[in-house]
Amino acid sequence: MDQPFETIAIVGIGLIGSSVAHAARASAGTKKVIGYDRSPEVRAEALKLGVIDEAADSLEAAVAQSDLVVLSTPVGAIGEILPQLSSAKAGTVVMDVGSCKGSVIAAAQGLPDSVHFVPAHPVAGTEHSGPAAGFATLFRDRWCIITPMERGDEAYAQSLARVDALWHAFGSDVVQMDAKHHDLALAVTSHLPHLIAYTLVGAADDVESVNEAEVVKYSAGGFRDFTRIAASDPIMWRDVFINNKEAVLEVLGRFSEELAMMQRAIRWGDGEALEKAFTRSRGLRKAIIEAGQESAEPNFGRDKKG
Amino acid sequence: MDQPFETIAIVGIGLIGSSVAHAARASAGTKKVIGYDRSPEVRAEALKLGVIDEAADSLEAAVAQSDLVVLSTPVGAIGEILPQLSSAKAGTVVMDVGSCKGSVIAAAQGLPDSVHFVPAHPVAGTEHSGPAAGFATLFRDRWCIITPMERGDEAYAQSLARVDALWHAFGSDVVQMDAKHHDLALAVTSHLPHLIAYTLVGAADDVESVNEAEVVKYSAGGFRDFTRIAASDPIMWRDVFINNKEAVLEVLGRFSEELAMMQRAIRWGDGEALEKAFTRSRGLRKAIIEAGQESAEPNFGRDKKG
Ligand SMILES: NC(=O)c1ccc[n+]([C@@H]2O[C@H](COP(=O)([O-])OP(=O)(O)OC[C@H]3O[C@@H](n4cnc5c(N)ncnc54)[C@H](OP(=O)(O)O)[C@@H]3O)[C@@H](O)[C@H]2O)c1
Ligand SMILES: NC(=O)c1ccc[n+]([C@@H]2O[C@H](COP(=O)([O-])OP(=O)(O)OC[C@H]3O[C@@H](n4cnc5c(N)ncnc54)[C@H](OP(=O)(O)O)[C@@H]3O)[C@@H](O)[C@H]2O)c1
Repeated sequence: MDQPFETIAIVGIGLIGSSVAHAARASAGTKKVIGYDRSPEVRAEALKLGVIDEAADSLEAAVAQSDLVVLSTPVGAIGEILPQLSSAKAGTVVMDVGSCKGSVIAAAQGLPDSVHFVPAHPVAGTEHSGPAAGFATLFRDRWCIITPMERGDEAYAQSLARVDALWHAFGSDVVQMDAKHHDLALAVTSHLPHLIAYTLVGAADDVESVNEAEVVKYSAGGFRDFTRIAASDPIMWRDVFINNKEAVLEVLGRFSEELAMMQRAIRWGDGEALEKAFTRSRGLRKAIIEAGQESAEPNFGRDKKG
Repeated sequence: MDQPFETIAIVGIGLIGSSVAHAARASAGTKKVIGYDRSPEVRAEALKLGVIDEAADSLEAAVAQSDLVVLSTPVGAIGEILPQLSSAKAGTVVMDVGSCKGSVIAAAQGLPDSVHFVPAHPVAGTEHSGPAAGFATLFRDRWCIITPMERGDEAYAQSLARVDALWHAFGSDVVQMDAKHHDLALAVTSHLPHLIAYTLVGAADDVESVNEAEVVKYSAGGFRDFTRIAASDPIMWRDVFINNKEAVLEVLGRFSEELAMMQRAIRWGDGEALEKAFTRSRGLRKAIIEAGQESAEPNFGRDKKG
């Protein structure tokens, strides 16, 4: 078994950072968690909740004492923090958990070889934020994607293996791919869905003669589903779209083509085209349920059958 | 208390029809449920499941014996069935449950005054279909919208009151409005969300270098949410879009404007605009949860915290 990370630093103690803290303690042999967040309030709350054992006053202080530094701020801040880790002690392993990887890897280009940066992205989350939102089982039965730096040395390979083992200990399946492919695949399965959900929820405001009270009342017709991911942290998502612009615009183009086709079919009353388009989706949902990535219960099981 | 409907006919024994059957027996004083469906297999299954007490071989046979006829086929078929009810015995109450109301009301214009047609739409459902999908509590704490026919006679008013009482007995809140407003409000809260979900799920197929296995694996990033409503019955939804074309195209126009704004902001790296747009949505979700129309649990409660 790979050597566990006994002391870890969590930089950015939100949903993902606190979940890593819980999971590392619960199942990966971590003894001590040091937390750093730019807000003193978040540090205090994380300490009070027992998410971290110790709060650090600065990034440097957190990094100095740790075997593993976890960067779990929004991706814009990850890009700003990485260059500041150049002076970390030799052999320090740094892992980020950002939702896009190309921009993060670009920001890590100046790091010395003595710092082992492993870009990771756990494909798991909730719509909640902050240190109280995290829990140890968030990553269980979910995928973690690692997009390694291009370097062939054995020391780095060992750090990579330790990070891989960490995610396995959290209950995740782990896969490696290059950052460009990651950013396109996640644009499809995560970034575009969030953009569309925010857009739909925002557009509901714009229909003059339908007021907000009505949107609330009749939301069980489907709208409510979209409000879940549209309740995710605005700063996190701002950063994803700014940093994964190319891939998001590409998949958005495909979406818009498909939508134009639907619009045309409705305008011309082409029931056959609509029925055909609507028939494709069931198989995909079935596959997602069978892969253990989704609940098979009607309405996600949220409306209990009395 | 209004006179209950002792014998009801369910025409179209799917999710909604079977839920009405269960709820009427459980809480509205109904003694006997007669079922008619165009497929003999559905009739046999409904009988075997105990959803209906008796299967009728024809629409006429089902209607002849009943105090209330429930039209719960897709809306296209509701429009075809309504004119066939002209010869129903005087005082027969007919209620549909279709998701759009303008087209249904148009199809009912030729009915004699002796037939009391009450257009209704329960804003409740699941992504499942067929007679096994229904359950008695589906309508509990959900809204039912009634869009009455324009007629002032006392006999009709009494039938309206009985239908109103029926939905109250099912645990629903009931509201009356005109069909045009219904069709626009539901285009916002139900029809557009379904169209967008079908479109997004369809578009995932179109990104060449991301294969279906990857879409399945990384669907927990947000995509899986959309597959739920995109798994709804294709024929039901084909009929909704064909029959509520005007309102759907109007709200789709608003959506497209909003999407163009988002796309521009991403292209120009306008983080401020994105953050502002993303910040509006949380309040709406909070209101929907407070109104009892949604679960407050992260991820709809489907991923249990272990
Ligand atoms: N949420 C998800 O579903 C999900 C899933 C997979 C990956 N991710 C990725 O995980 C990362 C964290 O997301 P999250 O959902 O955990 O966010 P979160 O709950 O909003 O937490 C982020 C934390 O980072 C802090 N922070 C921001 N800038 C900082 C800086 N320069 N230095 C130190 N701390 C800073 C924030 O403090 P303030 O409150 O003061 O801003 C906040 O406490 C993001 O990169 C995101 O893309 C998220
Ligand atoms: N699903 C929802 O969430 C929801 C919510 C509110 C309102 N509604 C409305 O409720 C109605 C029923 O929806 P549902 O979800 O219950 O659909 P469903 O589960 O697909 O059931 C519809 C049933 O009607 C039958 N049918 C079709 N044409 C018929 C005809 N001409 N004569 C007799 N039976 C016929 C179908 O048989 P075949 O299988 O042979 O086609 C099927 O058994 C629709 O108008 C829909 O707009 C649905």
